[in-house]
Amino acid sequence: MRFNVLFALVLFCNTATSLSLDGFAIGYKHGQLRVLNQQKLPHETEWIEVHTPEQMIEIITSLKVRGAPMIGIAAAFSLSQLAEKGAAKEEIQTAAAKLKASRPTAVNLSIYIERILSAMENASDYKSAVIETAASIYQEDIDLCDRIGVAGADLVQEGEQILTICNTGSLATAGIGTALGVIKVAHSQGKKIHVYVCETRPLLQGGRLTAWELQENGIDYTLICDSMAATLMRQGKIDRVLVGADRIAANGDFANKIGTYSLAVLAHHHKIPFHVVAPYTTLDPKCPNGDAIRIEERAPDEVRGAVGKIIWSPYNAPVYNPAFDVTPAPLVTSYILDTGIQTF
Amino acid sequence: MRFNVLFALVLFCNTATSLSLDGFAIGYKHGQLRVLNQQKLPHETEWIEVHTPEQMIEIITSLKVRGAPMIGIAAAFSLSQLAEKGAAKEEIQTAAAKLKASRPTAVNLSIYIERILSAMENASDYKSAVIETAASIYQEDIDLCDRIGVAGADLVQEGEQILTICNTGSLATAGIGTALGVIKVAHSQGKKIHVYVCETRPLLQGGRLTAWELQENGIDYTLICDSMAATLMRQGKIDRVLVGADRIAANGDFANKIGTYSLAVLAHHHKIPFHVVAPYTTLDPKCPNGDAIRIEERAPDEVRGAVGKIIWSPYNAPVYNPAFDVTPAPLVTSYILDTGIQTF
Repeated sequence: MRFNVLFALVLFCNTATSLSLDGFAIGYKHGQLRVLNQQKLPHETEWIEVHTPEQMIEIITSLKVRGAPMIGIAAAFSLSQLAEKGAAKEEIQTAAAKLKASRPTAVNLSIYIERILSAMENASDYKSAVIETAASIYQEDIDLCDRIGVAGADLVQEGEQILTICNTGSLATAGIGTALGVIKVAHSQGKKIHVYVCETRPLLQGGRLTAWELQENGIDYTLICDSMAATLMRQGKIDRVLVGADRIAANGDFANKIGTYSLAVLAHHHKIPFHVVAPYTTLDPKCPNGDAIRIEERAPDEVRGAVGKIIWSPYNAPVYNPAFDVTPAPLVTSYILDTGIQTF
Repeated sequence: MRFNVLFALVLFCNTATSLSLDGFAIGYKHGQLRVLNQQKLPHETEWIEVHTPEQMIEIITSLKVRGAPMIGIAAAFSLSQLAEKGAAKEEIQTAAAKLKASRPTAVNLSIYIERILSAMENASDYKSAVIETAASIYQEDIDLCDRIGVAGADLVQEGEQILTICNTGSLATAGIGTALGVIKVAHSQGKKIHVYVCETRPLLQGGRLTAWELQENGIDYTLICDSMAATLMRQGKIDRVLVGADRIAANGDFANKIGTYSLAVLAHHHKIPFHVVAPYTTLDPKCPNGDAIRIEERAPDEVRGAVGKIIWSPYNAPVYNPAFDVTPAPLVTSYILDTGIQTF
């Protein structure tokens, strides 16, 4: 229902071939698509002009664009661009399949691709259907983030110290973010919160992206190594843990950035509330539980060194590098969704 | 008693002014002192000739030499060198005080310095007393490591997968190491063990030093980011956790590299045996409990980036950087000491 309302709104606001959507980390206008290169942040602000789905696949797999909702949105815009170029239906379907396969763990990507394919099937004008569906996905995500932020900020008390991991803000979504969106809304309500940011090895989305985004938003924070979270909890310095999600199974088990499960166990041990923050588009009712979530393993050099610039361990060090982990539902205090706060 | 026996042995083997002690990461001969620069490992093998206590203090504070027993040994040799140069008693005492203050958390440093000062006080020839005591500290540590290794290896079963953190091997001691010494003895006994190495942010002693040392010893290992330990435990891939210590309080609480407490909580949650491995020189009976251990905080740039070569977070990111954490005794399954396995 929400989707349909937004869909109508987009149709009302834009003609099918003249969409102009300017976001914090992605922009789409008349078939022109650009994304903020998140690999270069925080020291360089580089926008990449994207021209083909093949280029977008490289951008997604190399994490120049990342974040569960954002990779879905970026893929949707890539198909929209293809439609605006007048591509045949089959060409769009082939590109959609390739984009969908580019990263396996986050469900938003496949849900959005399927939504576009379904809209194409049911439409008399498949090109307009693709373009309008991509735009509605983008617009909807902004709205979902706002709803999540408001729902979650209700939980956050004055002066709380909040721990988070990875980046779940405007670089990961079309809107204010999920876990970081809650933090932004609580901050805007005047609650004097402080955020402890796990740097999030190996790819340092906390140290590179979240630290920067909090700074841009004027929110107090302290950057820590992931291994320091436990000692902060023991010192009574963490009141709440807020994390995002890449896929939430039907039983509430969820996949998120590697290190999340560790924080969940530590929060449980220290009796600290632990919340998963996500839009309904991250729920995967077809996935029965965490064991059924496919976890992406990435290149060993991500662990042998950092940010593609340095290798500090033996060059041939054997490595285990899962990009995500699974946290069982019993460790979750509650789920902050766009539909409100719930438990499983 | 053990100390006295070793002391006599050293006196027997060496004349007071012609000691030649060649270790894996430190060498001392006729007042010439050199240390392996651990900041450059594993990609460069650079030995530094040390000439003064001031230089040794810089080497210790910048972690070119690190590891609880090793920094005590390095400081002891620095005083020995000063004595061989014919320094006055007061000069040695002043240098001893400065060396003792160079790093606060590991107790071995202050215990060794005090042992040398005490030997000076009680000796007719204070120079020989310093030189012989430093040599005996070195020789004793080799022996302590061997005893620890044999005691601990008894616990390790065929085919075990062992998790460890930081570096506790021949780079951290004069001998085979503490936690890593146990692993080496178990390996030499033909038990087909596999070691999971936490990279140990921020200074990456696991990724840079332990990975390299295991490789040099032909022991199978896998390097992981610290945040991945929890998910390995959940997968049933960790049979035992072995960690070193920088100071063990009278009640069994202990300080060790930051990240150790996190592993202790995670091991407890997953019902995995968790052992502290250390010589008696790491015990501090004067320290009642973990709250009384002073935790060194280090420079923010260690967290903002890595190995002095790159800063990936905002240049002014506020940082919390404790070099150690404290693990309460109830989380420890047992202590593997040179005197055998015990609990508190």
